[in-house]
Amino acid sequence: METIPKENGSTTAATPIRAATNPMVTPLLTDLYQFTMAYAYWKAGKHLERAVFDLYFRKNPFGGEYTVFAGLEECIRLIANFHFKKDDISFMRSVMPNCEDEFFEYLTKIDCSDVEVYAIPEGSVVFPKVPLIRIEGPVAVSNSNVVLVVQLLETPFVNLVNYASLVATNAARHRFVAGKDKMLMEFGLRRAQGPDGGISASKYCYIGGFDATSNVAAGNLFGIPLRGTHSHAFVSSYMSPDEIVVKSLRSHDGSSTCMDFLTLVRTWLSKLQSSESFRGVFGETNQSELAAFTSYALAFPNNFLALVDTYDVMRSGIPNFCAVALALNDLGYTASGIRLDSGDLAYLSSEARNFFLSVEKEFNKSGFGKMAVTASNDLNEETLDALNKQGHEIDAFGIGTYLVTCYTQAALGCVFKLVEIKDQPRIKLSEDVTKVSIPCKKRCFRLYGKEGYALVDIMTGEDETPPKVGQRLLCRHPFNESKRAYVVPQCVEELLKCYWPGSSNKPREELPSLKKVRERCMQQLEQMRSDHMRRLNPTPYKVSVSAKLYDFIHFLWLSEAPVGELQ
Amino acid sequence: METIPKENGSTTAATPIRAATNPMVTPLLTDLYQFTMAYAYWKAGKHLERAVFDLYFRKNPFGGEYTVFAGLEECIRLIANFHFKKDDISFMRSVMPNCEDEFFEYLTKIDCSDVEVYAIPEGSVVFPKVPLIRIEGPVAVSNSNVVLVVQLLETPFVNLVNYASLVATNAARHRFVAGKDKMLMEFGLRRAQGPDGGISASKYCYIGGFDATSNVAAGNLFGIPLRGTHSHAFVSSYMSPDEIVVKSLRSHDGSSTCMDFLTLVRTWLSKLQSSESFRGVFGETNQSELAAFTSYALAFPNNFLALVDTYDVMRSGIPNFCAVALALNDLGYTASGIRLDSGDLAYLSSEARNFFLSVEKEFNKSGFGKMAVTASNDLNEETLDALNKQGHEIDAFGIGTYLVTCYTQAALGCVFKLVEIKDQPRIKLSEDVTKVSIPCKKRCFRLYGKEGYALVDIMTGEDETPPKVGQRLLCRHPFNESKRAYVVPQCVEELLKCYWPGSSNKPREELPSLKKVRERCMQQLEQMRSDHMRRLNPTPYKVSVSAKLYDFIHFLWLSEAPVGELQ
Repeated sequence: METIPKENGSTTAATPIRAATNPMVTPLLTDLYQFTMAYAYWKAGKHLERAVFDLYFRKNPFGGEYTVFAGLEECIRLIANFHFKKDDISFMRSVMPNCEDEFFEYLTKIDCSDVEVYAIPEGSVVFPKVPLIRIEGPVAVSNSNVVLVVQLLETPFVNLVNYASLVATNAARHRFVAGKDKMLMEFGLRRAQGPDGGISASKYCYIGGFDATSNVAAGNLFGIPLRGTHSHAFVSSYMSPDEIVVKSLRSHDGSSTCMDFLTLVRTWLSKLQSSESFRGVFGETNQSELAAFTSYALAFPNNFLALVDTYDVMRSGIPNFCAVALALNDLGYTASGIRLDSGDLAYLSSEARNFFLSVEKEFNKSGFGKMAVTASNDLNEETLDALNKQGHEIDAFGIGTYLVTCYTQAALGCVFKLVEIKDQPRIKLSEDVTKVSIPCKKRCFRLYGKEGYALVDIMTGEDETPPKVGQRLLCRHPFNESKRAYVVPQCVEELLKCYWPGSSNKPREELPSLKKVRERCMQQLEQMRSDHMRRLNPTPYKVSVSAKLYDFIHFLWLSEAPVGELQ
Repeated sequence: METIPKENGSTTAATPIRAATNPMVTPLLTDLYQFTMAYAYWKAGKHLERAVFDLYFRKNPFGGEYTVFAGLEECIRLIANFHFKKDDISFMRSVMPNCEDEFFEYLTKIDCSDVEVYAIPEGSVVFPKVPLIRIEGPVAVSNSNVVLVVQLLETPFVNLVNYASLVATNAARHRFVAGKDKMLMEFGLRRAQGPDGGISASKYCYIGGFDATSNVAAGNLFGIPLRGTHSHAFVSSYMSPDEIVVKSLRSHDGSSTCMDFLTLVRTWLSKLQSSESFRGVFGETNQSELAAFTSYALAFPNNFLALVDTYDVMRSGIPNFCAVALALNDLGYTASGIRLDSGDLAYLSSEARNFFLSVEKEFNKSGFGKMAVTASNDLNEETLDALNKQGHEIDAFGIGTYLVTCYTQAALGCVFKLVEIKDQPRIKLSEDVTKVSIPCKKRCFRLYGKEGYALVDIMTGEDETPPKVGQRLLCRHPFNESKRAYVVPQCVEELLKCYWPGSSNKPREELPSLKKVRERCMQQLEQMRSDHMRRLNPTPYKVSVSAKLYDFIHFLWLSEAPVGELQ
């Protein structure tokens, strides 16, 4: 792994910042217009101007009122390693054949050492309009190239934050509906947008509150716990128990060896078949399935978890599973449970639970009734909610397609806007008021109330006195004159921290481990009032500006907007 | 670029197969259960059994009746370079600590040299149930490891085909609505699922009929034409024309130099303002915008294309653009056109066209009225259709979010099913008949009618006589007894071709260039009857099986399905 330490004596953080996880994240991963604009800036001599850009989004996704911010680490890795290779420059020359040679020579020299990046910590709960990342030029360096470089960063930053935050939010929403005590597994690799769509999904679903993934590459890259058992194809691949050649299994404590585990399984199946409790529930079970389960148990006696719906859950899968689990039990092993991948999951999980409880009772197998039930098959937030309403006996959910593709929300819609250049605040106007940008280099704070819940986020100008604990403060809606409220914060959190000090003297925030980011996310979600979190008609969380910033925004707006003529 | 040529004297194709485009595509990019199953196969000695798997999908996406197959090249690259590295093996040991050492030693040795892969050519129009890819074990090699390896390939193959085909189909649908004469540009990088979500989107949208992308990395990797101009931020970054320092511009033919291009632009703006044609249309235009346009034209006099909606399209953007375009015209340059990124695109494009036509007439500037109008801003299939119905003057569309995220369809839902093992056909049953798999190693043919249109796809058993031109043939619905038809094909195309011969003697199909794949796609779409292609209530294309295969499927179904008891 290539690591490029920041060569800057002023940074206190010693940990070098690694290259982007995906080697395809290079300075070329951007829109062509970033290069054409960069050239135009360069031609006009504007590439040396100090500028401030905000990255933010305009609307919470999934019809909710909160968003989980993710993707920051990859952005910082990109800028820490930002430079053009010779081949990149040759390619750009071929794409822009009429541009001056000096520009390409200039490109070979640029990096992000003059750029300062401030951001809300990854894993935070965030809201529309508040900058997630602020990128700015240096105050004191004369020959910086901030406008130019930052322009090149727009596309990859938005790309890296957009899906990461969207899928982390989706995961948090799934967790919210499923409840804290359920195991949530991300099974989306095959349905994601290509290879690192899948790898990103695993990483950011973990941040949002999932427990594990099926994706081995993500487990390897990020240390996310891995889970998985077997598929229908495994069951179909067996034709009969005769195929099982090696039938012996050592007992769990190693003290003895069962020479014919298959016969032990069959004995248990007969006992189940002839038991009073299961009369009429099942007759002959599918023997291919029995063979597959037996074979799988021989390979994984410590983690026997079987997919029970290849043929018929209650008439074949569950009895076959119980026969194998009971045989394992005889040898001191405890089976892990079953997976349901089709049908009425609420009903089947309850029926399975009853079956397990009957086995526990009938054969006096303590704990057998608590056998874990995993469910998969096109699950999403809605189906989890519906299952809760119906009542179910599912302990773990494997969720794929709708989680990783974020089906109900195409994109988070992050934008990257110029808010100041050469110390002049800039505003982007629009007839749609939600699209008007909030100008100026800003500071952002979260104010907490008595019960520890977040009350409001407030943006202020850079030079304003920051909000103080116990001090009454007017918070204004940025665009709606009549919406304003006084707040007396019990706790004030400054949101934007320095993750890349550029040529400034500021200390750099360390990039926390994935586990720490996940913990922050869990903790932040706890600090939200439940009415902001509920699925149906959640209360919008308030995002405000200071009175001073409010006045300035509206002054700027009037001075920029064209005066129409009524005709 | 690492290339691993196939060491097999029997293959006629000489071109080595390159590594996967994304270096993250490794044998670890798979679900954990593929490894646990592989271990169970290995423990049971089943890893040496010959097997056949089909990769197919069950339903056309986007409410349509056709799909474009894409992603094949990346699948072939994966298998051509399939081997575990030492680190991969160490990681797998840590994930599966109770598995035998010999298994991991075995993993270090496996590759795909014994696997045969047959596929429909990439860029083909394809239909549900027909295998897109068939993977199988060797006939003659005794110690193959096909079941095991193929199991490991399931997840990455499905991952690589699923999104590729989905987004290529989405692109083809956009092209169908936009019409052949429009320029279509993919602008989705910032909204895609991470870095190679974006790169894949660019590649597969090009296959599906797009003309260009904004994604520089995709342009570099695949040679896709690049397009892009400037953003709102570029416009906002200018405060006034005074910022333009270097104002000179050489004429197009190099014969003279205009020392003050800005004054030339201002002169033209005055002419427009005082012209009879535009009285009341606009007054003072925004001077920051004028500065930005002038600056951009100085940088790109040969490709001046301006985003005209930062302030007000008709009162500022269009007049400012025309002033700069007319000034360029004086120096022998031809401006490229405008981009609209907000508002009523049908109305604004028509108004812009009228303005251009008035300029052409008023100032006798031949061709000015034909100025290209590009539109972007949350476009999708529906909005293109709506624009067509309203009437518009747009020449080119830049499409992002809804194209690349495939908003209206979460995933294609490809599956990978075992259809034969040890020469025994396997069927996957389900209470949902659309989920029943079609067993057996199969041959697949497309039958064409008199007018050159595709009539029906038919699957047959491997040993059946293939369909012949002019010979009447019964085509049966695989599951619906009453649906059947006689067909006399005028042309018969075998669909599955050998892309990876493994240890067989078959010649290997070359992997065509991206351009060729795109051409095939365009040609295949032409060969579809228009009623299959229309957006509203398209006619389903027929997918059938031979009479013999039909009988066999239903024989197998009965023999596998459990007999219930009415209670």
